[in-house]
Amino acid sequence: MSTEAPLLLALDLTGTFLFALNGAFTAVRHAKLDIVGVISLGMITALGGGILRDILIDDLPPATFRDWRYLVVAAGGGLAAFFAGKHLDKVAWLITVLDAAGLSLFAVTGATKSLAFGLGAGQAVILGAVTGVGGGTLRDVLLRQVPTVLHSELYAVPALVGAAVAVVATSAHVYGAPAALGAAVSCFLVRMAGVRFQLNAPAPPGGKAGGR
Amino acid sequence: MSTEAPLLLALDLTGTFLFALNGAFTAVRHAKLDIVGVISLGMITALGGGILRDILIDDLPPATFRDWRYLVVAAGGGLAAFFAGKHLDKVAWLITVLDAAGLSLFAVTGATKSLAFGLGAGQAVILGAVTGVGGGTLRDVLLRQVPTVLHSELYAVPALVGAAVAVVATSAHVYGAPAALGAAVSCFLVRMAGVRFQLNAPAPPGGKAGGR
Amino acid sequence: MSTEAPLLLALDLTGTFLFALNGAFTAVRHAKLDIVGVISLGMITALGGGILRDILIDDLPPATFRDWRYLVVAAGGGLAAFFAGKHLDKVAWLITVLDAAGLSLFAVTGATKSLAFGLGAGQAVILGAVTGVGGGTLRDVLLRQVPTVLHSELYAVPALVGAAVAVVATSAHVYGAPAALGAAVSCFLVRMAGVRFQLNAPAPPGGKAGGR
Repeated sequence: MSTEAPLLLALDLTGTFLFALNGAFTAVRHAKLDIVGVISLGMITALGGGILRDILIDDLPPATFRDWRYLVVAAGGGLAAFFAGKHLDKVAWLITVLDAAGLSLFAVTGATKSLAFGLGAGQAVILGAVTGVGGGTLRDVLLRQVPTVLHSELYAVPALVGAAVAVVATSAHVYGAPAALGAAVSCFLVRMAGVRFQLNAPAPPGGKAGGR
Repeated sequence: MSTEAPLLLALDLTGTFLFALNGAFTAVRHAKLDIVGVISLGMITALGGGILRDILIDDLPPATFRDWRYLVVAAGGGLAAFFAGKHLDKVAWLITVLDAAGLSLFAVTGATKSLAFGLGAGQAVILGAVTGVGGGTLRDVLLRQVPTVLHSELYAVPALVGAAVAVVATSAHVYGAPAALGAAVSCFLVRMAGVRFQLNAPAPPGGKAGGR
Repeated sequence: MSTEAPLLLALDLTGTFLFALNGAFTAVRHAKLDIVGVISLGMITALGGGILRDILIDDLPPATFRDWRYLVVAAGGGLAAFFAGKHLDKVAWLITVLDAAGLSLFAVTGATKSLAFGLGAGQAVILGAVTGVGGGTLRDVLLRQVPTVLHSELYAVPALVGAAVAVVATSAHVYGAPAALGAAVSCFLVRMAGVRFQLNAPAPPGGKAGGR
C-alpha cells in the first residue's frame, strides 16, 4: 500500500472534485435549488460513492470523514458550480464529460481499495462500480429521477470495465500510476463511446429499453 | 451456531434467488430497462435487505461480499428473469408469490442472525422485518414508487409475524429446520391471505388508506 | 463522557419522540397510509438520522438497536400521531414546530457524539447536520418528495449553526446542559425565523430558488 496510497488519494480527490462539479451543475440546471441545496447535492454526488464503499468494506468512519481534504474539495467543487450557474446552458456536454471522468477515477480507486481491504476479485469489481455510480444514484434519487445507471447508454458497463482492468493489473502485480490511468481511460472511452453513439445495453427480449 | 449456519445459508440463498427474480421481473415489466438495469435491480432487490441488516448488526463486510455465492445467485436470478421477459404478462401473480416467499425466508434469517449477533428480541424482530422488506423498498425507491411496505395489503405485518415466531423458537431453544420453516410458512400464509382478501392494516381515524 | 451521557440521551430521546410525531403526522396528512405505514414512517423519520450518524462514526450496532428506549419512544410517537389523525388539519404549524425542535436537538447530539468518537470539528458539524436532517430526508424520499433540506427556507443552515455552537462549546470545555440547550435554541430560532419570514439561502446567479 505504501507506494499506492498517494496515487489512490490523488485520483480519489480528483474524482471527488469532478463529481462535486457535476452534482452541483445538475442541481442548478434541473431543480433550481438554493445555495445550500446546490452544495449539498454536489457533496452528496462527490462523496456518496466512496462512503457506500467504505461502509461495505468496513473502513469506518469513511475516508471522507477522516481526511478533511475530501470535504473541502467537494464543497469547493459545489461552490464553483454554484457561481458558474448562469453560464451553464452552453456546457451541457461538460456535465457529461465530468461525470464520465469521475466515474472512471472512482471505479478504479474503489476496486483497488476493496482489494487492499481483502475483498475478492469479483467483489472488488462490483464495489468499484458501486463507488463509481453510487454518488450519482443518490443524486438522482434525491431529485426524483430514475437513476442514470438503470437506463442510460452504457453507464454501469464502463465502470465494471475500468474496475476489472484495475483488478487484473493488481493481480498481475503491475498496478501503479500507468495501470491505474489505463484502467480509468478504458472506462472513460467506453462511457464516451456509449454517449456519442447512443449505445445501450441490450433490452429484454420482446421489450424496449430506455422507456421511462 | 454450528448446526444452524448451513440452514441459515440455504434459506438465505433461496430467498436471494427469489428476490432477484422478483426485482428483475418488476424491472422488465414496469420500467423497460436494459439488461444492466434489469440485473442491477434484481441484485439490489435480492441483496439490499441482507446488506442493510449486516450494516446494522455490524457484520461488515456484509455476507454478500464475503461469500461469492450470494452475488452469483443474485445475478443468475436477474439474468433468468431478463430472458424470460416476454413471457411475463401471464405470470403477474408469480411476482407476488416469489416476493412473499422471499419476504418469508429473509424475515426468518434476518431475525435469527440478529439474535446470533447479540441483539435483543424486539430488535431482532424489527431487523428481521427490515431484512425482508429492505431490498424491495430500495427497488421501489429507485423506480420512483412509494414502497409497497408503506401502503400495501399486509406486507410488514407478515414479516414481523415470521420474525417473531423465529425469535420465540430460538428463545425456547427449539430452533432448527422445522421451526425455521414453520416461521417462514406463517409469514407466507399471512402475506398471501392479505393479497387474496385484499386485507389492509387499519387506516388512520378519519382518513383513508391506500391513497397515493 | 460520564457526565454528558445522560444529557445526550435525554436530548436524543426527546428529539426521537418529536421526529416520530412529525414523520407520522406527515404520513397521515400527505399520503393516507395505513397504520403500519404511518408508524414505519414515524420510526424512520425519528431513527434515520441517528442511524446514519452511528454508521458513519462506526458506532455499530446503532444506539437505536442497543437501547430499547429508542424503539419504544419512536413507536409511541408514531402511534400517538396515528390516533390524532383526524385533528391534524388544525395543526399544520405544529408539524413545522416539532420538526424544528427535533432538528435542533439532533444537530446538537449528533455533533457532540461525533466529537466524542474522535471526529474532527468540521466533520462533527457536518455530522450534526446529517443527524438532524437525515431522518426527514429519508421520509421525503420514501414519499417521493424532493427533500426539504434541498430547497426549503433555511433548513440545513440552522442545523449547521446549532452543531457549530455545540462543537465550539465542547472545544472551549464549557459543554454541559446550558451550552447544549443554548446550541439547540440557536438552531431552533434560526429555523423558525426562516419559516416565519420565508427566508431562503441565496439562489444561483441567474437562476431562481424554490422551483420544483
